[in-house]
Amino acid sequence: MTDPSAELDARIRTSFQKQAMMDTIGAELLEVAQGCVRIRAPVLPSTTQQQGFAHAALTFAIGDSSAGYAALTLLPKGMEVVTAEIKINLLAPATGPELVATGRVVKSGKRLSVVTSEVARSDGTLVAILQGTMVPVVA
Amino acid sequence: MTDPSAELDARIRTSFQKQAMMDTIGAELLEVAQGCVRIRAPVLPSTTQQQGFAHAALTFAIGDSSAGYAALTLLPKGMEVVTAEIKINLLAPATGPELVATGRVVKSGKRLSVVTSEVARSDGTLVAILQGTMVPVVA
Amino acid sequence: MTDPSAELDARIRTSFQKQAMMDTIGAELLEVAQGCVRIRAPVLPSTTQQQGFAHAALTFAIGDSSAGYAALTLLPKGMEVVTAEIKINLLAPATGPELVATGRVVKSGKRLSVVTSEVARSDGTLVAILQGTMVPVVA
Amino acid sequence: MTDPSAELDARIRTSFQKQAMMDTIGAELLEVAQGCVRIRAPVLPSTTQQQGFAHAALTFAIGDSSAGYAALTLLPKGMEVVTAEIKINLLAPATGPELVATGRVVKSGKRLSVVTSEVARSDGTLVAILQGTMVPVVA
Repeated sequence: MTDPSAELDARIRTSFQKQAMMDTIGAELLEVAQGCVRIRAPVLPSTTQQQGFAHAALTFAIGDSSAGYAALTLLPKGMEVVTAEIKINLLAPATGPELVATGRVVKSGKRLSVVTSEVARSDGTLVAILQGTMVPVVA
Repeated sequence: MTDPSAELDARIRTSFQKQAMMDTIGAELLEVAQGCVRIRAPVLPSTTQQQGFAHAALTFAIGDSSAGYAALTLLPKGMEVVTAEIKINLLAPATGPELVATGRVVKSGKRLSVVTSEVARSDGTLVAILQGTMVPVVA
Repeated sequence: MTDPSAELDARIRTSFQKQAMMDTIGAELLEVAQGCVRIRAPVLPSTTQQQGFAHAALTFAIGDSSAGYAALTLLPKGMEVVTAEIKINLLAPATGPELVATGRVVKSGKRLSVVTSEVARSDGTLVAILQGTMVPVVA
Repeated sequence: MTDPSAELDARIRTSFQKQAMMDTIGAELLEVAQGCVRIRAPVLPSTTQQQGFAHAALTFAIGDSSAGYAALTLLPKGMEVVTAEIKINLLAPATGPELVATGRVVKSGKRLSVVTSEVARSDGTLVAILQGTMVPVVA
């Protein structure tokens, strides 16, 4: 007998670990649930911008990935997703020690899934919101 | 006597070198002109996604930075820009050996600058287009 | 003695009534609260697209306006807002009899306000989500 | 013998004429070419916002439609497109007497087409730029 949530968790983790970029920025999969994935990343000296805050690309990386994996939780085994498009609005400086992105599915579909993500600082301040479209592809 | 284009180039390079993220992903400032900045980055084993292509965050990083620096070229000395929002549409797999982002200013303003960027592979294939808003801030 | 919520409601209604486009599409201000505005519009024969559903421009019109007015509720008297940018993801056919847009403020600021809106059909189905930036201007 | 460009023009015009919204705002198909469509609309008293400029929904309507029809020119007969998502950056007040939107295809695909549009005033000033995704559907 398999635990469906354990299976889901393992499936997302396997894909996550193949993303070298996630390792480069120190990102970690925090939580996997049906339609919702949370990813955390430290604000490292190696991922800052010119003012010393986390680079928008770090915020984007975990926002986009959390949203993509959220979409993937609602797709059958053997699928992957790619980002068709995503938009980020940056709300506050991305200061450390870490950022947490919470990706959610707004609408899951066979051709397209519409997703959002919120990225917050350790103190709870919202740093960015994202809204995008994921496309399912055969893995 | 100063060469205005040399001054501009130096100003953008100084800011660019402060972005640790650019160093982490191996990005390099390729060209600085009034209203147009080009940035190149290799597709490194450390910046890929689960299928082995460059991660969307790499494409985003150089697209966003090229657009931001393009905006900065039209602002007075002593200013920096931050991204208010930016949207990326991904068009083709981001394969190497390298990607080049060309950022351009569509409208420069005191409060907001509207910018675009195109990211292309070495073979010229367009990988992504971005459209966003930069906000000038005192450096 | 003035009722602050009545004052707010009157201020938003006055601006709304100046928007001829809202009248043209039959839109109506449904609810005004701090940081949240709801607008309703019928799906008229005059506002459809080629398949007989409401045109994306109708969905956009009430989504954008609800988000803009939500931003305005948090600004001082004597101000207006203009849309700097907004993105819409369309999720389902916009069938009638009517659509309701709920605009909300994610972050209110002196220079920029970040907003969202959800547009739903009478049966509750989400038709579109929007995410954008409003700029305060002197009225 | 058929003129392929006349066939294309007729096909786009037939779909355009079914969009009641285009008639409501007074929009007119100006030019149809492979991968590029231009639409014009007057700034009518019935389509303004609270400051007397064209409402963002008017600018959006012709921007979105020009981009969608541009995508349609590259698809086989018997297809229509729907907007999956589109983002608009507004650059300048949309004053009359008229606005012209020029939609172009950046990448045409069987599942998704990526498109842009530029909307300009009669004096040539750019009013808005749009970037979005169209989905082909069977008509």
